[in-house]
Parts: sequence; structure tokens; C-alpha cells
Amino acid sequence: MPQLRIALAQVNTCVGDIAGNSTLVRDWTRRAVQDGAHVVAFPEMTLSGYPLEDLTQRRSFAAANREALERLAADLREDGCGDALVVVGHLGRDDQGPRNSASLLHGGEVVATYDKHHLPNYGVFDEARNFAPGFDLPIVNFHGLDLGVVICEDIWQNGGPVTALGKVGVDLLLCVNASPYERAKDDQRVPLVTSRAREAGAPMAYVNLVGGQDELVFDGDSMVTDEQGRIVARAPQFTEHLLVADLDVEAGGHTSTTVPPEPGPIQLPAFDVRRIVLDPEPVPAYEARPLPRAEPLPDAAEVWAALVTGLRDYVHKNGAKSVTFGFSGGIDSAVSAALAVDALGPGAVHGVSMPSVYSSEHSRSDAAELARRLGCQFQVQPVAEMVDIYVRQLGLTGLAEENVQARVRGMLLMALSNQHGHLVLATGNKTELAVGYSTIYGDAVGAFAPIKDVPKSLVWELAKWRNADAEKRGEVPPIPENSITKAPSAELRPDQTDQDSLPEYDVLDVVIDGYVEGGKGYADLVSDGFDAELVERVLRMVDRAEFKRRQYPPGTKITFRAFGRDRRLPITNRWREVAP
Amino acid sequence: MPQLRIALAQVNTCVGDIAGNSTLVRDWTRRAVQDGAHVVAFPEMTLSGYPLEDLTQRRSFAAANREALERLAADLREDGCGDALVVVGHLGRDDQGPRNSASLLHGGEVVATYDKHHLPNYGVFDEARNFAPGFDLPIVNFHGLDLGVVICEDIWQNGGPVTALGKVGVDLLLCVNASPYERAKDDQRVPLVTSRAREAGAPMAYVNLVGGQDELVFDGDSMVTDEQGRIVARAPQFTEHLLVADLDVEAGGHTSTTVPPEPGPIQLPAFDVRRIVLDPEPVPAYEARPLPRAEPLPDAAEVWAALVTGLRDYVHKNGAKSVTFGFSGGIDSAVSAALAVDALGPGAVHGVSMPSVYSSEHSRSDAAELARRLGCQFQVQPVAEMVDIYVRQLGLTGLAEENVQARVRGMLLMALSNQHGHLVLATGNKTELAVGYSTIYGDAVGAFAPIKDVPKSLVWELAKWRNADAEKRGEVPPIPENSITKAPSAELRPDQTDQDSLPEYDVLDVVIDGYVEGGKGYADLVSDGFDAELVERVLRMVDRAEFKRRQYPPGTKITFRAFGRDRRLPITNRWREVAP
Repeated sequence: MPQLRIALAQVNTCVGDIAGNSTLVRDWTRRAVQDGAHVVAFPEMTLSGYPLEDLTQRRSFAAANREALERLAADLREDGCGDALVVVGHLGRDDQGPRNSASLLHGGEVVATYDKHHLPNYGVFDEARNFAPGFDLPIVNFHGLDLGVVICEDIWQNGGPVTALGKVGVDLLLCVNASPYERAKDDQRVPLVTSRAREAGAPMAYVNLVGGQDELVFDGDSMVTDEQGRIVARAPQFTEHLLVADLDVEAGGHTSTTVPPEPGPIQLPAFDVRRIVLDPEPVPAYEARPLPRAEPLPDAAEVWAALVTGLRDYVHKNGAKSVTFGFSGGIDSAVSAALAVDALGPGAVHGVSMPSVYSSEHSRSDAAELARRLGCQFQVQPVAEMVDIYVRQLGLTGLAEENVQARVRGMLLMALSNQHGHLVLATGNKTELAVGYSTIYGDAVGAFAPIKDVPKSLVWELAKWRNADAEKRGEVPPIPENSITKAPSAELRPDQTDQDSLPEYDVLDVVIDGYVEGGKGYADLVSDGFDAELVERVLRMVDRAEFKRRQYPPGTKITFRAFGRDRRLPITNRWREVAP
Repeated sequence: MPQLRIALAQVNTCVGDIAGNSTLVRDWTRRAVQDGAHVVAFPEMTLSGYPLEDLTQRRSFAAANREALERLAADLREDGCGDALVVVGHLGRDDQGPRNSASLLHGGEVVATYDKHHLPNYGVFDEARNFAPGFDLPIVNFHGLDLGVVICEDIWQNGGPVTALGKVGVDLLLCVNASPYERAKDDQRVPLVTSRAREAGAPMAYVNLVGGQDELVFDGDSMVTDEQGRIVARAPQFTEHLLVADLDVEAGGHTSTTVPPEPGPIQLPAFDVRRIVLDPEPVPAYEARPLPRAEPLPDAAEVWAALVTGLRDYVHKNGAKSVTFGFSGGIDSAVSAALAVDALGPGAVHGVSMPSVYSSEHSRSDAAELARRLGCQFQVQPVAEMVDIYVRQLGLTGLAEENVQARVRGMLLMALSNQHGHLVLATGNKTELAVGYSTIYGDAVGAFAPIKDVPKSLVWELAKWRNADAEKRGEVPPIPENSITKAPSAELRPDQTDQDSLPEYDVLDVVIDGYVEGGKGYADLVSDGFDAELVERVLRMVDRAEFKRRQYPPGTKITFRAFGRDRRLPITNRWREVAP
């Protein structure tokens, strides 16, 4: 059977950084070729970065992608990598509009391009909005084997290019991806990869992006299966990695270029199959190496790694070097601080204790202890005097007085950010944001909120896991025990605790999850056995908080179409219309 | 020829307010029936409100729509309107998912439902994301005439239901819409309506939503054309209106239910035509009334009406009664104040002058003069003392010091909002927001920014138009002349003017428009004749500002899917999972 060494380059790209992403492709291809690889595959939209949102519509950016792609093909040959077949994702554009494309580079040329067929238009994806779907299926014969390429969602939908490629026949299926991490995503992804490999009747090489991009984190987890869908090689998660796998593939000698009509409920669209013979000679026999196989991380470690990756890449890809945020002595800021130190190192983390007249002694000492354990920067900036002027001059009482404390702190952090260049982090957790236990323009101030998607009960779980993990390694547990065990409080009025205003967190988190993530309604949750009054209370809080959060955005939802909606653009984006 | 009196109910709905929207339908149908109408048509998604974004996905909301629709049919009969044919838009849902539906109510029943076929997925629209497309075409024979229904985008795309209805034959086409206002939208809308009427070979009755909904403003502008596309009746813009038109329609006696195959480049999908005979008897001959025909507003008046409508509905639909914002003495806050008083009345507008040590004498007197002319509430709250503590305690200089002034003002307005219940407005214009001449968490603070989509040069134009219009009516011009003529300044440091940092506004606005709205690149703008250095400077400012604005959102872009993207939900939304 013909042999082939394939290398899956699980790399961390940056949106808009065409030059940097091109360099990434050259560096990793060189490494792969030096390691004897015949085929090197990169993730979806490697050159452009992913996701691009409205940047897909900018013609000058699409033109820059095309130019960079052709230059890259030439550069790879210059680099001595011209004999390899290199698969690179990029933004395409033709008379049908923007395309989510993957091109095959060989011998200094772009030899074929596949345009993604299935364009996801749900959840975090807006691809049907941003791209035109492709109907061409190039199949490249390389070293005697027929290789087909598909992109990400193409394997998540039935009746698409994988079915078509299975019908005309390929020997190896390359699937390039930008598949975001979710908790327990493996439970969905692995069965899918294996079933599509079986459907194609060919081994599948699945390469995924790694790293953080704004709201998304990509976990990598690239893998290779055999034609029966069994995983034979696998890359580690949350790290750049070159997964090199030797395959013994049975060559089918396929010649058909017609997809037979599909009976049954799902109609197969008309694909245009084009067979390209690049090199019919099998590679000379060589001794195959054992297949590397990393184990996926257990749950808490996986979530921690995702949060660290998301925070690190948000800060670094946006050109910041340091972060600042409030050290309140509570669990949320402690976990945020531990994540920040793991992501950026202690020298880049600037904690600020901002006591008011209602701050307890333990909140100050726990904050100082946190800084001591982490070895990070720390300062104390009292806010009582600023708060007092507002309260006196405007005659503030109740909630207005509570909010002023949180807002004075937010302004203080922004002033330090302006003066010293730190990025401000917000330390709110998902539960308190969901129910509105948070002050807009106050503790919600920040460019990035590391635990914004972590419910309170998981915050505690992660804190305990991180401390235990440190102890296992003989290190100082980063989070003070007192921050984990004490009753949570916003400390905006005397003797306040969270449970004055909120149900117990263990129940609250389950109800929020059912309502927000699960799409359950009031009746569903009551029939799940939750107390009707509690459900009503939580749902009202969530609706109210969502309204308030949207009502007071950065202030001015500037709409970049006349009386229309704001443009959707990535935050992290190195593309510049004018070259620097 | 059979006669028919049709009434187009150009109403102002509210998202999520199923009960209120149902009442609207009952009230306006009664009015129409009392006026002798046989057919009453309401806008797209009348019952649910529009646009719904992710609210489309909530099953309990779809179920509530269905229930309300059936109750409405029964209530209309109770109201004595059972003989009329009433067309009402609503959220539908079946095994294919959510639908953008319009149902025909008659005799206490839902007699037919049309699901929108063409789902726009660009600009402000996400319908392909939110709805499943329909392929059924009900044609209802009512008083001997065959009536077809289509929804909004169905007339904006070629090869859809209008083509199909034209082929099988209808006598009258009802088009129900939620078509947002844009400047000079008429230039697109009118030719479209007329050409589709000709394509269908039938008169078209086009009814559009009116009112503000979050970022969108709907202008109404409902109209009726004859079968040759000539406008024969037209409603006024930006106001609720019942457009009643008597038609003499030639009945075709159509029986075909098969759409013949379409040759040519655009393939017509297979529509399922269903003919329903409700009442084959023509109405007894009656004397037709003259057709009413409003004139569209001239440009400045149209923009002013759109801004007033957007602001008024945002405030009222969200349950607020009053607004507060800074009166700086400059043109932006003066125009915002005039809009707010036109929208809400002087008693609901609370201006606050917040002088710092850098504020000029004229900025204070112009602010006071503005309040005097408008007759609105006004107070002076100096900020020097608060600013001073921040500057001293943190040792702030330069931009950090400038920003603290703007932020102290933002916090002050939020404190007044919390204490007194006013909604905070931000008074920034589109130009300064586009180039980042604005402080995040400072002057950008606010729930709604009335002139966020108005470039600076248009702000001046509107100010002059509004003053001239007042003079024409013998009223006091609301905007002090000095606010219009003086050089604009942020007054955050001594002797500052906008043009220290920005190009002249007349050039700047054209470059921004080309880059942001027109999708032009650097090379395009330079070849348009703009100075290369200036284009580069502006493009860099816009990119930087867009990044900053996204980087510091309300603080915490809470993602309501695990590590995914925030839910998209309307801000203004009266739907409650738990009944009040």
C-alpha cells in the first residue's frame, strides 16, 4: 500500500495579520518538510485568521489574501518546500462574493482551491451571511493517492461534500478546521470525525486551529483516523503542535468524476468534481514511525487551559503587555488573578485594592495575601474621598450610592490604564452578570473579563482545582483559603452578602443554565422540579439584566450603516488598510 | 370590474408586546371596518414586533404568538370584524423551525398562512439565521378576487414568490413589510414596488411598519400601486396612519395551481400553490372615494423626523419617562436637546452643565441659553473637585487627565439617573465616534445616542434647518446661534479645538463615508482625489477607534453560549417568560 507522511500544523493565527500568518506557514512547513512530511495541512482561514465577520466584505483585504497566497506558494518553493503539498486556508473572493477557501500549494504554485460548501449560520457562526458556498470538489492525486479537502462545517452537516467525495472515491480526506472549544466538545467532535471518515471510506486528517480570538478559544485537538474512523494519532490541546503521522493508505485508482444521484430524503447538490494529477508516483518505501497520541485533558484542567489561552491571546494579540484590575479579596478577583499570572506572568499583573468605607479588614488582607502568593504587582488606592464628594454633592442614597462606589473604582482603573498602558480586566463571573448583580460602568468596566463565561459554582470548583494542582506539584496554592471559604459579598453597604439579593448559587446556576443555554421556559423549569417562585425570580432578574446590559453599552452603539446596525468586526485584527 | 376597499394599517408595534400589539390590531381593524374596508393589512411581524433576533428561537415565545393569533381571530369576530379579511404578521414555528409568517384571519379563523420565502441575511438583517424559508403560496379568493401575500424581502429579490404568483395569476398582491428607513430609501423602494407590481401583473398594496425599535427606525410610507406600477395612494411618513384605498380590480378567473418552469439564469424554486375560496361574491357596487396621496418629506425634515421618532420610541418603549445628558454649550448637545424636546416634551428633558477648570464662560452661558429657549429642566454641577482628587491621588497627566474629566461627567449623569430614574443620553455625533474623538466610559456613557449616526457636517445642517423651520412657524429657534457658529472644542485642556486633532469636518465626513459606508479602500480614496496623507490619517483613526470601542464594551461581553458569542436580543422587548 502507498505510504504518506502527513503533518498537521496546529498553529495559532491572528485575524488580519497576513504577514505574520504567512511566516507561520513557512516556518511550520519547513519544520514538517525537515521531518520528512509529504503533505502539510494548516487550519481553516490560516492566512486571514478566523473569524473575520464583516472583514470578509472588504475587497482590499480579499485582494491582499490572494496576493499573499501566491507569494506564499513561491516562498515555499524558495524555502526548499516546493515538493510538499501544503494546504492553507484563506479568504477567497470571486464574482459570487467572498469565499471560505482552502488552497493546495505545490511547486511554487496554487494548484487547486476548495471553497467551503456548508456555511454555518448559528451560534457563534455567521458564515452564510459572510460567504458564498462552493460547489467545486478538486481531488488531487499526489504520490498515487487521491486527496480530497473539506472545511470544518462540511463534516457537521449531512449530504455535502463528504458524501460526494465518498461516492466518487478518495484515498485520504483532509479536513481543515477552526472549531471553537466548548466544554465537552469532544463528545460531539470525535464521533463526527469518525463517522465521516467511514462515510468517505477513507482515513481522515483533521487539523484544528489553536489559541484565543476575541470571544472564542480554539483547542486544537487535531487528529488522524483510519478509514474505519478509529483515531490513530492525536495532538495535545491548547498548544501549537505539529502532529506527524505515517499512513499506509490503500490506493483506489478512482477515475469517476460524476457524483451519482442521491436517493433518499437529503438531496445532494450538484458538485463539480475535478481530478488533478500532481504526481502519480508513490513515495519509495520507508520505515514508518509510531503514531503519536496525546490524551485529552480532564474537565477542570481543560477549562483552566481554555481560560488561560483566551486571556493570554486577547492581551498579547491586541498588543498589550500588562493588565490591571481590582483585588477585592473575593473569589472572583482571586481566580482572575491566578489565571492572569498563569497567562502573562506575575510581572504583567497589577492588582489594585480599592477599599471604601464599607470594605472589611479581611477583604484588604486577603487581597494582599493573594498578591504575595502570586508575586504580582500590588497597590492600595482608597476611594472613600471620591465617593464622598459624589454622595454629598448629588445627595445620593441607596442603589445610587452603591453604584457610585463601583463606578469610582472603574474610573480609577481606567485612569491607571491611560497613565501606564495596562489593559483593564473585569472580574465578574457569569452568574452575577446574568442576574445583573454588577454595576454597568463600574465593576463591569474592562476590555476583557476572564471568567465572564464561568458560573459562580464553577469559579469555586476551579479555585479548588488550581490550588490542589499546585500542591500536587509542590507549589504554593495561589488562592488564599479565606477567599474560597468566606461568604461572598459586594461590600457596597454594611454587612451585605450576595445571598441578601440572590438565591443560593448552586440552584441559581442550574436555573440560569436551563433558561439561557438550554432554551427552557418557565413551565419547563417548574416541571423540572424547581420552585415556581424561585424560577420566576431568576428569570425576571436575567431578563432585566440582559436589558440593562444592552441598554447601556459603551454608550453609543454607533451604527455604521445609516440608521442600520453596527458593523461586526473582530476586536483583535491586525489588518490595516494602510500599510504601516 | 369587482371593487374592493383595502385599508393599510401603518402601525407602531413593540417587540415582545404580544398583548399590546394584539390590541393595536383589534383597534385599527375596527376603525377600518367602520370605514367600510373589506381587507385590512398590517405590517410584517405585527404580533411579535420586529426585529426579534434570537427571540425567534425561544419556543415559549413562538407558542405565545400562535395562541395570540388564534385568540385574535376569535376576538375580531367578537368585535364585529369577522367579515373582513385581516392580514397579520407574526412569528410562526413548525417542524422546520421558526418562520416569518403572515396569516389571513376571517370569520373567527386563521384561514391561511404565508411564510416569507426570501430571508435577508445582510446589513441589519439576520433572517436566514433566524427563520426557515417558506415554499407555500396560498392564494385566497375573496369577493371574487384572487389575493396573494408576500413579505418584504420577497419583493427585493428576483425569481421568488412574486414571479410565481405572476405566473399562476393573482388579482391583487398584498406586501407586508418591516422596511427600515435609510436616507433616500425612496429612491430604491418606489422603483422596486412598481416593478414588482408589473411583474405580478396586479395592483400592489404595500404596508410598512412605522416607529423606532432600538437601532432601527421604520418610516411607514405605505402605498398602493395599480397593475402598471403607478402609485395611486400613499401614506405619510413617521406617523401611524390608516391608508384606505378603493380599488377597481379586473378579476382574472385564475385556476392554475402549477408554476410553470422558469427558463433563464434564475431558477424558480418549486412553490406549492394552494387556492382557497373564501367568498366568490363580488361586493355590491359602491361609490369609490378619491385616493389619498401624501407627499414624502424633504431631506432635512425627513432626517429630523427619523431622529425624533427613534429617540421617542427608544425612551417610551423602554418604559422611561425622562432623559438627562450634558449641556456643554456645543452644537452636538444643542441638537440632541432640541431633538429630545421635540420627542419627549421640555418637562422630560433634564440638562446638566458640568463645568471643569477648562470650561469657557461661553460654554456655560450657551448651555443656559439653550435650556431657556427649550424651556427644559437645567442644573449646574461643577466637576472640578472630583477631577482634582483623581489627578492628585494617581498623578495623572496628558490624556489620562483629559479622560478623567469626561469620565467624572459620565459617572455624575449615571448617579443622577440612578437617583431620579432618567435615562442617560450620549450626545456624540457619528464623526467623532468614528475617529475616536470621544472617551469610553466618559462622554460615550448613555443608553441611547440620538445623533450617533449623524456626521458632524449634517449636525450643523440640521441645526440650521431646525432653527429656520421654527422661524418659519413664528417660533423661537431652539438652538443658540453661538453654538452653531463657534469653533467646536472638547474643552478638556486649555484653548483646545477639534481641529487640533482632526481634519476639517467637511473633508473628514466624506472620507469616513467612503471608507465605512462605501467599502472603499485606501487606494480608492486616493484615486478619488483625496490627499494620501489625510486618507491614511483618517483610516488609521477609524480603525483605532473601532478597535477601542469594541475592546471596551460595557465591560464584560458576557457570552451566553459556553465560550461562544453573546445572544443577540432586542433591547426594547416586552416579552416576559413569566407573565407579570
